[in-house]
Amino acid sequence: MIPNSKSIELKYKTWVQIQTYLTKSDLVIVPIGAIEQHGMSCPLYTDALLAEYFALKVGFDNNVLVSPTIAVGDSLIHLNFPGTISLKPTTLITVIKDYINSLYIGGFRRFLVVNGHGDNYGCILAAFSELGNELSGMRYFVKDFWDFPSFREIMQTEFGDSNGGHADATDASILLAIDDTLVNKELLSNEFAKVSYWISRDLVNELYTKSGVINANQKLASAVIGDKLITEAVNGYSKLLNELTK
Amino acid sequence: MIPNSKSIELKYKTWVQIQTYLTKSDLVIVPIGAIEQHGMSCPLYTDALLAEYFALKVGFDNNVLVSPTIAVGDSLIHLNFPGTISLKPTTLITVIKDYINSLYIGGFRRFLVVNGHGDNYGCILAAFSELGNELSGMRYFVKDFWDFPSFREIMQTEFGDSNGGHADATDASILLAIDDTLVNKELLSNEFAKVSYWISRDLVNELYTKSGVINANQKLASAVIGDKLITEAVNGYSKLLNELTK
Amino acid sequence: MIPNSKSIELKYKTWVQIQTYLTKSDLVIVPIGAIEQHGMSCPLYTDALLAEYFALKVGFDNNVLVSPTIAVGDSLIHLNFPGTISLKPTTLITVIKDYINSLYIGGFRRFLVVNGHGDNYGCILAAFSELGNELSGMRYFVKDFWDFPSFREIMQTEFGDSNGGHADATDASILLAIDDTLVNKELLSNEFAKVSYWISRDLVNELYTKSGVINANQKLASAVIGDKLITEAVNGYSKLLNELTK
Amino acid sequence: MIPNSKSIELKYKTWVQIQTYLTKSDLVIVPIGAIEQHGMSCPLYTDALLAEYFALKVGFDNNVLVSPTIAVGDSLIHLNFPGTISLKPTTLITVIKDYINSLYIGGFRRFLVVNGHGDNYGCILAAFSELGNELSGMRYFVKDFWDFPSFREIMQTEFGDSNGGHADATDASILLAIDDTLVNKELLSNEFAKVSYWISRDLVNELYTKSGVINANQKLASAVIGDKLITEAVNGYSKLLNELTK
Amino acid sequence: MIPNSKSIELKYKTWVQIQTYLTKSDLVIVPIGAIEQHGMSCPLYTDALLAEYFALKVGFDNNVLVSPTIAVGDSLIHLNFPGTISLKPTTLITVIKDYINSLYIGGFRRFLVVNGHGDNYGCILAAFSELGNELSGMRYFVKDFWDFPSFREIMQTEFGDSNGGHADATDASILLAIDDTLVNKELLSNEFAKVSYWISRDLVNELYTKSGVINANQKLASAVIGDKLITEAVNGYSKLLNELTK
Amino acid sequence: MIPNSKSIELKYKTWVQIQTYLTKSDLVIVPIGAIEQHGMSCPLYTDALLAEYFALKVGFDNNVLVSPTIAVGDSLIHLNFPGTISLKPTTLITVIKDYINSLYIGGFRRFLVVNGHGDNYGCILAAFSELGNELSGMRYFVKDFWDFPSFREIMQTEFGDSNGGHADATDASILLAIDDTLVNKELLSNEFAKVSYWISRDLVNELYTKSGVINANQKLASAVIGDKLITEAVNGYSKLLNELTK
Repeated sequence: MIPNSKSIELKYKTWVQIQTYLTKSDLVIVPIGAIEQHGMSCPLYTDALLAEYFALKVGFDNNVLVSPTIAVGDSLIHLNFPGTISLKPTTLITVIKDYINSLYIGGFRRFLVVNGHGDNYGCILAAFSELGNELSGMRYFVKDFWDFPSFREIMQTEFGDSNGGHADATDASILLAIDDTLVNKELLSNEFAKVSYWISRDLVNELYTKSGVINANQKLASAVIGDKLITEAVNGYSKLLNELTK
Repeated sequence: MIPNSKSIELKYKTWVQIQTYLTKSDLVIVPIGAIEQHGMSCPLYTDALLAEYFALKVGFDNNVLVSPTIAVGDSLIHLNFPGTISLKPTTLITVIKDYINSLYIGGFRRFLVVNGHGDNYGCILAAFSELGNELSGMRYFVKDFWDFPSFREIMQTEFGDSNGGHADATDASILLAIDDTLVNKELLSNEFAKVSYWISRDLVNELYTKSGVINANQKLASAVIGDKLITEAVNGYSKLLNELTK
Repeated sequence: MIPNSKSIELKYKTWVQIQTYLTKSDLVIVPIGAIEQHGMSCPLYTDALLAEYFALKVGFDNNVLVSPTIAVGDSLIHLNFPGTISLKPTTLITVIKDYINSLYIGGFRRFLVVNGHGDNYGCILAAFSELGNELSGMRYFVKDFWDFPSFREIMQTEFGDSNGGHADATDASILLAIDDTLVNKELLSNEFAKVSYWISRDLVNELYTKSGVINANQKLASAVIGDKLITEAVNGYSKLLNELTK
Repeated sequence: MIPNSKSIELKYKTWVQIQTYLTKSDLVIVPIGAIEQHGMSCPLYTDALLAEYFALKVGFDNNVLVSPTIAVGDSLIHLNFPGTISLKPTTLITVIKDYINSLYIGGFRRFLVVNGHGDNYGCILAAFSELGNELSGMRYFVKDFWDFPSFREIMQTEFGDSNGGHADATDASILLAIDDTLVNKELLSNEFAKVSYWISRDLVNELYTKSGVINANQKLASAVIGDKLITEAVNGYSKLLNELTK
Repeated sequence: MIPNSKSIELKYKTWVQIQTYLTKSDLVIVPIGAIEQHGMSCPLYTDALLAEYFALKVGFDNNVLVSPTIAVGDSLIHLNFPGTISLKPTTLITVIKDYINSLYIGGFRRFLVVNGHGDNYGCILAAFSELGNELSGMRYFVKDFWDFPSFREIMQTEFGDSNGGHADATDASILLAIDDTLVNKELLSNEFAKVSYWISRDLVNELYTKSGVINANQKLASAVIGDKLITEAVNGYSKLLNELTK
Repeated sequence: MIPNSKSIELKYKTWVQIQTYLTKSDLVIVPIGAIEQHGMSCPLYTDALLAEYFALKVGFDNNVLVSPTIAVGDSLIHLNFPGTISLKPTTLITVIKDYINSLYIGGFRRFLVVNGHGDNYGCILAAFSELGNELSGMRYFVKDFWDFPSFREIMQTEFGDSNGGHADATDASILLAIDDTLVNKELLSNEFAKVSYWISRDLVNELYTKSGVINANQKLASAVIGDKLITEAVNGYSKLLNELTK
């Protein structure tokens, strides 16, 4: 997705190259996403792809290693929609713990977690809470890509209240900006839930969504807005990276 | 804490009384808190006490049952301070699952979770994510007591940036409003972390706090502000209860 | 429940006060109970309330700290009766482990566990078995409140074979002695199981009980007997505390 | 150990023979023991051997199937003594659950658990508590072999207070009655703990025992007493079997 | 099964004798089997019995201790056939971990695992993978008894393609060689699966087997071949023991 | 890696497209690999990359969907080499269970698992053993890519005994055939372990390897051989796919 990103992708390195890197930095970027329905127009890959994209871009710009994406997150609520793959939250927590613990054994101590899926956030914090109780000397940030003030401002300006649910115009805009073949533009839709409370999975199709879109209007998406959003997320993450090296 | 609150406390009822209640309502309020250090002036009980207080007040006003408080949450990061009692997040998730599942077997279907401790939030969502995948017909809200717009507004007006960390003026104000013998007013303090990133427990005393207060100025607390905050939280939760009955 | 008991309740202390206490003693009392049906006359809270009562009384008399009650235990067998809240035994074991481990990190080494619910006993031992394999220097007692010879003697004299099942006259007597508004005296009942063996939950209503009382006659309860029982339990626990300091 | 016991040992049967048995009875005896130090004179196998012995004898007398012995139990506290093999209690609970669940799938519904090791007791109850919540129609007893009134009477008469700890004269007597080559009679010993409370494993050798014997005098053991104890245990279990068929 | 094998069976030793053994060797043989249907002619015990037999024979010949057999393995796929007892694989892994960890605490460092049941193999490796990450200085082999080249050669020569499934002529031959009363020779059968792929348990009787035999012809079994196979397995394991002492 | 492979990659589809696919086929290919050291010349990604490559190629040729690669497997034994990321085997089992269960809920019933890392094999079988006990109607194959007779023949012919360990000429050859920039050819090496038994991680560098290569000679690798190996693996998997549709 990012030209020449192999140079900062951990997975394309040998262990000797990682060893050399660690003599200069103990910092690594960890993208986490989801494989879940994103309405009729966006791919199941959306959340993992966006997290990976931001991680690689920020890593490349700052010459920081990016570990392989944890692609599958907590998407239990979307399992009525085929193709969705979900870990149980307790599984996800254990996965993140094993994953970060491996990097820690190798020598990494500073972690920037780029999260592309809201329902993962609590699991990531839970995993780091346990890790931080067991391992010494860790420093880290966990950040949803949409959770920077300037990013939120654009969302509000461009999409208003028709955004921020699931499979919204923000996701679609960024996909369009990255590669517009990823989105089936003719099937972009809008749909709003009948109730404000949260529900068990069996009630999703009846009370939340038929199309997969929840409380959002994908039709407002555009590549131009996507580009603006990307800029803000990348700037936001870069500042966190900078903080982490203090 | 709340006069006559026994009338809506599940634990003071017999099973026959619960059975009768369930013929009219399947709604229950569940308070969750923490037993953790709150600086030199506030009791370990603070988060659990506040959650319980709000739950009882809202339950009493609306004649809705309140289940026993889940008093111990995820406080791993505070274990350097003696008296703190913490579950691991994965334990907490399992506890919440067993607890809600019991209520569900009994016949409850609608749940308002009153959360008094920020680090529990992700665990509660994780537990409900798994429950919502296993059980049918659940409707629920999970809400931190400080997460209502009008509540946040007061915090911002009264305390500005000297609030929102750990053991802040919000907590202390509400304690003072409830019962001012709960707070050792002479030891109210302020302390700010040296770094912006998150850390493992071994670094807490060096980089975050000596007193237990983190990024907050408890000295701004007052019972008058506490009363205003209580009003907003209670109003906020009451509206959610009302939504849940739709 | 106990006048002035706040002075020995861990939860009402600040971490600084606990730190001071630990310079003189590493002993703490831990009450464990249950939230489960206790027939038509006694509250769901019974077992937790009794454990907490004994813990506070013994703690207050001996100036020993009492940690927050673990209120929910293993009550799976009673889940047919609404309002009952149960942890799975394996969850309860993990909860106790996390809880005691937290106190241990803080500096506590001696534990008196006051158990108010028979079905918890094996879980508490299991938890301490694992803790005792992982942590060094622990000294402890786990004791059901009815398991002192002089206590058993009173039960036998007063209630004979109509006691010792579930929701029996012992529980009701102690409740009456503590606060007789806790018991609905008109609904005290007696009921005996049809079989002597143990059964799965689906068979409980058919073979064990309709009222919730099992193999017991609550009607024999009185506050006078309750007072006598309280005295013996408190004496028994006080002796154990004394042993623990050797 | 028991002549001709193969005729009632599940493990020596084919599945077709079990299927035939199930057309007439859904009852099975399950022995559970331990592999742990039993002082300098008795084998590590003691608890498992005794449980298996009683199970086979009772099964043979009553023509009831005996399942393979669960030989390893919770012996964490004895791990300082080499040769001891222990499951963690939570592992043991899961093992018992899987084991009983398998028999249940096959068609068994009534279970007599013959327990030879005190520290297993709570784990067995915990496992059956969870099983009884998940599976319907189960009827069962869990019984320590020494927990029959007439058995306890003999112990009291013959050994008085020098018995009932670990590796006591009861165990040794029964071993002698079964096969006196199992006991190294010259190394029978007595040893009593320095403290009455319970301790973590690191303190065992200092406060409890050097020889492995704890609060017991093995030297009082004899085959004659062993024979008497065996009779009472076998009678006791036979009565339970009879109850289970009601 | 093996004359005089008590001399090398850990369970018949006292802890003092194990302590003495450990001054000379830190090597132990661990047999693992299964309790599962073996067609209409062979006992449920088959896999555990064979593993135990090989372990004892190899131990006796080489004067190496043999620990108690882990008799129950992963036999989930056979649970349609009554009498089968299975652990879930994750339970089995935990059992093996606890078991080997106990031996390790006692002082053992070298392990020869004699496996009698194919479906256990991955679980044993998984357990040792985790153990090897946690404990230092371990050296070990895990070996299925049929996985020696000379053993496979005999199987191929004698049974050709009618072997190697479940409940095959190899198992039956070895049983016959050990004790021909273990096999009901008149019910030896052959049966072959309708499909080559693997299936969930609900499809077993329809697509794999009615008799319990899968892709094998038990009728080719003989004690003479069994003796030859035993010789090769024993030689194979003895060589591994020898390697382990290097 | 495979031109146009997006057309059969589940992650690039929308849920509507998956729903349409499922009306015609319930078959999916699942690649599983590892992120672990592969000597000084091959990338950490090797095993995951190869599994993904084979899965995509076979899926594309047969028009069968390929689910996202499970990239991280059990690589605990390699954690001394930085960059290696490993799940614990029990975590991996749970991950596979959640993953396959999600696909099952969506409607998939037939699974071809393409495994690129030997140490995963037992974990995959364990996961499917548990899944096959819980879910009905599953049909599947789990296959290591090197475990086809014709593939093994080429390995034997080309590399003889200098292959089959870790980071061998087989892996390197296939990488070279796919994209020779993936391999640092100048650092291809050979190294053989000092012992034949298996060891805990702390002994790896002393007894097994300094370079990361174990019992293999990478220098024999060539793209020409890689192409031959690819052909055999692809043919092998295609035949399994064909079997699965029967």
